Amino acid sequence: MFVILNVLLKPLEVVIMSAKIDEYKIALMGFGTVGRGFTEILIKNREWLRETYGLKAKIVAICDIYWGSIYDPAGLNEAKALELVEKTKEEKILEKEYDVPHKGWNAVKTIKETNANLVVEVTWTNLKTGEPGLTHIKTALKEGKHVVTTNKGPIAVAYHELKPLAVENQVFLMYEGTVMSGTPVIRFLREAISGCHIEEMRGILNGTTNFILTKMEEGWTFDDALKEAQRLGYAEADPSGDIDAWDPAGKIAILVNTVMGGKIHPKEVDREGIRGITREDVQKAIKEGNRIKLIAHVRKEGGEIKASVKPQKVPLSHPLANVMDVTNALTVSTDHLGEVTVIGPGAGRIQTGQAVLTDLIAIHRYLTKGIKFYA
Amino acid sequence: MFVILNVLLKPLEVVIMSAKIDEYKIALMGFGTVGRGFTEILIKNREWLRETYGLKAKIVAICDIYWGSIYDPAGLNEAKALELVEKTKEEKILEKEYDVPHKGWNAVKTIKETNANLVVEVTWTNLKTGEPGLTHIKTALKEGKHVVTTNKGPIAVAYHELKPLAVENQVFLMYEGTVMSGTPVIRFLREAISGCHIEEMRGILNGTTNFILTKMEEGWTFDDALKEAQRLGYAEADPSGDIDAWDPAGKIAILVNTVMGGKIHPKEVDREGIRGITREDVQKAIKEGNRIKLIAHVRKEGGEIKASVKPQKVPLSHPLANVMDVTNALTVSTDHLGEVTVIGPGAGRIQTGQAVLTDLIAIHRYLTKGIKFYA
Repeated sequence: MFVILNVLLKPLEVVIMSAKIDEYKIALMGFGTVGRGFTEILIKNREWLRETYGLKAKIVAICDIYWGSIYDPAGLNEAKALELVEKTKEEKILEKEYDVPHKGWNAVKTIKETNANLVVEVTWTNLKTGEPGLTHIKTALKEGKHVVTTNKGPIAVAYHELKPLAVENQVFLMYEGTVMSGTPVIRFLREAISGCHIEEMRGILNGTTNFILTKMEEGWTFDDALKEAQRLGYAEADPSGDIDAWDPAGKIAILVNTVMGGKIHPKEVDREGIRGITREDVQKAIKEGNRIKLIAHVRKEGGEIKASVKPQKVPLSHPLANVMDVTNALTVSTDHLGEVTVIGPGAGRIQTGQAVLTDLIAIHRYLTKGIKFYA
Repeated sequence: MFVILNVLLKPLEVVIMSAKIDEYKIALMGFGTVGRGFTEILIKNREWLRETYGLKAKIVAICDIYWGSIYDPAGLNEAKALELVEKTKEEKILEKEYDVPHKGWNAVKTIKETNANLVVEVTWTNLKTGEPGLTHIKTALKEGKHVVTTNKGPIAVAYHELKPLAVENQVFLMYEGTVMSGTPVIRFLREAISGCHIEEMRGILNGTTNFILTKMEEGWTFDDALKEAQRLGYAEADPSGDIDAWDPAGKIAILVNTVMGGKIHPKEVDREGIRGITREDVQKAIKEGNRIKLIAHVRKEGGEIKASVKPQKVPLSHPLANVMDVTNALTVSTDHLGEVTVIGPGAGRIQTGQAVLTDLIAIHRYLTKGIKFYA
């Protein structure tokens, strides 16, 4: 009897380590653009996910500082939530209009006490402290709940604190949407080119500034181009996050921390925005066969990792030079492949929602046996 | 006692379904450019693989129609094999120079009777029948051995036969290197953008023809550019596989069969090579703001999948227009992301060896619990 038990214990252990989830019950922390984009494509793809991956998912809780907090262990009417917030600007509209067992729970209570087994953290970005997302993610990991986030703050400032928490609690922490939205650079670097050693990366990681530079090439002044970016919703009323390059500094910090084995805070990135660039600079560069781009750059140099974001002249023959408007791109230099470039959208409601969806599918792929996905 | 056994059977089943492999024992079928490139980076990265992924791998058998066939269950001296074939052109040199327990086994015997648990199939490509790779892969899957291949033939002509074999025998069939070498388009399409629905793909999937078109833009005639491609080793003595577009037709067939849910044989691809393109055509297109590229194209149209490879004018503003020389690229159009483009090498000894390495790592990632790779 002892022998039998002994033999059987190991397999059991393995199974506990990576328990399959029959249904993903999601607590959605934040119901802004990304949260709603994800909800929309989750509704649209629910049957397809079930048929294709055997993946069942529903939202059981939505917790938003403005729209309110609702929780139904049996699952929420997700379409109704989308409709309510699109029809009205009314504060706490979710709490007013839903007939659900629990309302008004704060974020930490929602993460801890709901029956959610996966937390989607899509609140606002703070590149200094990572809060409030950092607290949300830490709480979820400690509770043994998987986390998917598109929030740059926590990953940029505290990845090295979050990673061991996830391992210790045997849950996944996925963050594809933190860099270039659903254009899958994180999964590209971590999985698709695994085996390569990354020596250097150069990227256009901020769409707003790339849009402004594109407009300046077409003859617009910096000020007019910025106003146009604000009018189109690309830039905020206070545009410094983009044009002073805080946003791409956060993203390059994420790449350093998660795929290059380094440790850097966004504020330590050598950073220069595009305020000093004129229409004349942009047009002069073109005549010389270059384009001025705001390049996020990281390289290994004598055992050290150096990260910067600065306007640079890129030869027109390079793929990055031809990335225009709000499109983003990343070129990675590796030992086995030389340069590989990924070009795609860097922001957007559905595009970033897609990042959440693909992370959810990845978690499911790891938790189930992966063979059928490959054969 | 019955109850206990009953409870414990399920976990055991799961473990058997995806049994962890302590050490990958590789049978290398083919010791040409790719086989040697993979061997070189396996040797170079062995310690790193062990430290980073806990992945142990060694080659136990090499079976090559020219260099000979050797097998040592304890593992071969891999560096010696590289040195031997590089120093001499002598047939069966491996069998002559190695002191190993088994020599001269044919391919099927090697796959069946060695202690290998993973077969790397890197013999020559036949886009009509898939042989001999097809027989090698079928044999391996039936024996319950994982397969990694860079051989376009079997995947292009028989994927729909191989896929159920892999599922039935609960082993992985990986083929990243069949399209764009180590530039990870297969893993990109299958995993990194999972959740997206692919509507259309356009790619430059043949380096030789892209090189010739680049040279023609610089003023070379077609004939001179072709001779230069042959001198540099890009094109074969009989160049029809490239310039008549058989090679990219095979690759687009692979994409149709593996990621678009279609079923097509390379010979059914609507195919037109670059023999009819002149230097004048190329230069005239540039003046009109286009570049002529040999574009592999697949799109969904009214429930049908249409695949073609043809020279096409691509606007200079499109990422594909700026892909020059032997570089390859693929643009995929999806519902959630719009256009996403991947640019990178499409061939090469180390680049294709990298595809084998990354497939090996992917298998290992699926067979072990994936959490530590993500957290």
